[in-house]
Amino acid sequence: MDVLVINCGSSSLKYQLINTDTEEVLASGLCDRIGISGGQFSYKPKGGEKTTQDVDMPDHEVAVKLVLNALVNQKDGILKSLDEIKATGHRIVHGGEHFTHSALVNDEVIKHIEECADLAPLHNPAHLLGIRACQHLMPNKPMVAVFDTAFHQTMPPRAYIYGIPNEYYEKYKIRRYGFHGTSHSYVSKRTAEFLGIPLENSKIITCHLGNGSSICAIENGKSVDTSMGLTPLEGLVMGTRSGDLDPAIIDYIAQKENLSTKEVLNILNKKSGVLGISGLSSDFRDLLAADEQGDLKARFAREVFAYRVAKYIGAYTAALTGVDAIAFCAGVGENAKFIRGKIVSHLQFLGITLDEQANLDTVGKEGIISTKDSKVKVCVIPTNEELMIARDTRTLVLGKHL
Amino acid sequence: MDVLVINCGSSSLKYQLINTDTEEVLASGLCDRIGISGGQFSYKPKGGEKTTQDVDMPDHEVAVKLVLNALVNQKDGILKSLDEIKATGHRIVHGGEHFTHSALVNDEVIKHIEECADLAPLHNPAHLLGIRACQHLMPNKPMVAVFDTAFHQTMPPRAYIYGIPNEYYEKYKIRRYGFHGTSHSYVSKRTAEFLGIPLENSKIITCHLGNGSSICAIENGKSVDTSMGLTPLEGLVMGTRSGDLDPAIIDYIAQKENLSTKEVLNILNKKSGVLGISGLSSDFRDLLAADEQGDLKARFAREVFAYRVAKYIGAYTAALTGVDAIAFCAGVGENAKFIRGKIVSHLQFLGITLDEQANLDTVGKEGIISTKDSKVKVCVIPTNEELMIARDTRTLVLGKHL
Repeated sequence: MDVLVINCGSSSLKYQLINTDTEEVLASGLCDRIGISGGQFSYKPKGGEKTTQDVDMPDHEVAVKLVLNALVNQKDGILKSLDEIKATGHRIVHGGEHFTHSALVNDEVIKHIEECADLAPLHNPAHLLGIRACQHLMPNKPMVAVFDTAFHQTMPPRAYIYGIPNEYYEKYKIRRYGFHGTSHSYVSKRTAEFLGIPLENSKIITCHLGNGSSICAIENGKSVDTSMGLTPLEGLVMGTRSGDLDPAIIDYIAQKENLSTKEVLNILNKKSGVLGISGLSSDFRDLLAADEQGDLKARFAREVFAYRVAKYIGAYTAALTGVDAIAFCAGVGENAKFIRGKIVSHLQFLGITLDEQANLDTVGKEGIISTKDSKVKVCVIPTNEELMIARDTRTLVLGKHL
Repeated sequence: MDVLVINCGSSSLKYQLINTDTEEVLASGLCDRIGISGGQFSYKPKGGEKTTQDVDMPDHEVAVKLVLNALVNQKDGILKSLDEIKATGHRIVHGGEHFTHSALVNDEVIKHIEECADLAPLHNPAHLLGIRACQHLMPNKPMVAVFDTAFHQTMPPRAYIYGIPNEYYEKYKIRRYGFHGTSHSYVSKRTAEFLGIPLENSKIITCHLGNGSSICAIENGKSVDTSMGLTPLEGLVMGTRSGDLDPAIIDYIAQKENLSTKEVLNILNKKSGVLGISGLSSDFRDLLAADEQGDLKARFAREVFAYRVAKYIGAYTAALTGVDAIAFCAGVGENAKFIRGKIVSHLQFLGITLDEQANLDTVGKEGIISTKDSKVKVCVIPTNEELMIARDTRTLVLGKHL
C-alpha cells in the first residue's frame, strides 16, 4: 500500500511517499517558504535525481497540489495515478491527553487536534492546514493522524505531574507530555529486535539527539518518563533550546535585558542551547569543525550537551530501576562519535565499556558500540518517524487495531 | 571558644551559642516577627527550659540586644559576661562567585555581600541587617560570614553553565550557584568519617531533604554538581517550591490565570511543591499522617518527591561516574523512613539493598540503612549547619586558613 506521509509546519511541508509492503521510500521532498515570497519546491523520486524549483506557494493547498502533481508527473513522477495513494499519514505534534494512539481522521479527531492547539500554538494549526488541504484535494481518501505525544501517554502520574498547584493540572492540563514519541517508539522497538531482547520484558533508554533532543525511559515497550515537558523546551540542552533551567532565570533575564517574558521564552527556544553557549552555531557539525580548529567554546558547548545527556541516562536508569540497553538516534546520536564517547565515559558504573573502534565505525547506521562484555548494550539505531507514520496509517486504514 | 551563630531572615533571627572546643550548644533560640507586630522571642539554655516571651522587635538590632541580654541574664543566662563571646558567625545565603570560602567580615566583604543582594534579594539584605546590628552592639568583636554557596564554587563549568546565551553569564553572572553548601559540606565530611572512607578519594551524594531540599554530587570532598541553581527554586520538589519545570510553564500559567511573571514565581516558591500537589501541607509530617489516614493526594505528593530524589541520585552517579556512599540529612532525610525506602527501592542497580530494620530504627541519628553486602553504603547523617558556621568562625578568628 502506498502511503503519503506529510509533516506540515506553518511555512513548510515535508513529504514522503512510502510503499508499506516493501517499506521503501518511493519519493520525498520539501515545500519551503509557504505563504512567504521566495518559495522552493523539491522532489526526489526513488533512484532519481532531486530537482528543486522556485515557486511561490500562497498556502498549504497549493503546496500539496505541487506534491501530487510531481508524483504523477510524466517525466519523473513515480505514480501513474493518484488512485495509487491509498491514504495520507499526518504528523501531529500535540495530542494532549486525548490521543494515546494514532487515529483515523474524522470531524471529532479534527476537533480534538484543534483543542490541543493551545498547547502547541505553532504546530497544531499548521498540521490542520495540511489535513484540510488533503481533504480538499483528495476527498474520501483516508487520513491518519500520528501524534508526537501519544507514545508517552503511558507515563505514570509521578513522572508527568509537576510540583505545582494541582488545580493547574485539573483546570489547564499543565503536565509533562513529552515529544518525539514516534521516534522513541520506533527506536525502542527496533533496539529490542536488533539486540534480540524481548521488548515486553526490557528496560531501554532511547536518546533522540538532533537539533531538538529528548530522552525516554521505556519499560516493557512503554514510555515511563521523558525529558521534554509541557512543551519541547524542557530537558536536554539542544541546538537552540535551553532545556532545563532554574525557572527564576526567565524573570531575571527579563529584568536585566528589559524584555517581556514572551521575548525571553523566544530567546530560550531559538537562541539558546549549544548556539547560545558557543555563540557560534546550533549545528553540531559546525561545532565539531570549530572544535577541531581549536575553538574552546565550541568544545565546551559539546561537553555541556554530553554531560546533560549522561545525567539524564543516570536519572532514567533510576526511574527504570536498571537498564538493559541504551540507543542513540537522530542526527547527533547517529553521527557524533565524540559526543557518544563522552556520554558513555560517564556510564562505567553501569558496567558499560565503549568499543572505541565500533563507535568510530558506526556512523548513520545500526550498530553496537559497547564491548561484548558490557552488561548494558549501547547501540546506534537510525530513527525513521516517516516509516512509523506510514505503518500506523496502513494499520488503521486496514481497519486493524494498533 | 564561644561563638554566637546568627541566621537572619527578613523578619526572623535564629541563634545558637556554641562552645567550639566541646562543640556543645550552650544556648539557642529564635526572634520571630521582627518588624511586624506580635513578635516572639525564645531562649533555651543548655540543660534548661525553653522560655518564650511576647515582645515587639522593631528592628534586628533590638532582636540581637534581646539575645545578648538573655545570654547574660541573671536567672537563666549561660554567660557571666558578653566578653566570653569571642566571635559571631553569620549565615549568608548568597556569596556569588566571589566567595569560595567563609570570610572574616570587613568593609570589603560587606560590599561584596551587598553586591550579591541582586541574586538573593530576600536574604542578603536581611543578613546585612544582622551583621550591622552585631557591629553596633559588639564593636571590635570579630565576625565571620559563612556562605551557602561557597562550597559549590568548586563545580566545573559544565555543571554550572546553563544552556542560555553566554553573554548572560558574562554580563549578569547567571549560572548555577547551589545552596545548602554548609550542610552538604558538613554531611559529606561526616559521612566519610562515619563510614571510614577517605574523603580525598571518595564519591559521595548528599541529600539534604527538608522543607527546602537539594542534592549534591561530591568528588574527593569537593562539590561537582548540585540541584539548586541561580536561586533555590530549581531541582527537587520541595515543601512549597516546584523545583524543575518546563520553563514555558511560567508564561502558560500567567496567561491562564491572568497573573504577572512575578506572581507566578511567587506561587512556584510558596504554594507549590508537595503543598501544591497534595493541596494539604508543605510539612512532611502532616503528609505522613494524612497518608496513613488514606489521603491519596498526600501519598502521591510523597511519591513524586521520592521519585525526583531517586532520579537525581541516578543523575549524580553518572556525574561522578560512580558513587561510594549516599547520605540523607535534614528534617525529611533524617526522619522520613517511608520516603528513604521509596528512594532506595530505585537504586538496586547500584548494588544497594535497604536494611529494612535499620531504616526503621534510624530516625534523627547517625546510622547505616543499607545492608552489609551493599556495594554502595547508604546512611543517615543529621546535618549541623550551625556547628559548621561556628567551626569556620573559630578557624578564621584564630588566623588560620580554611
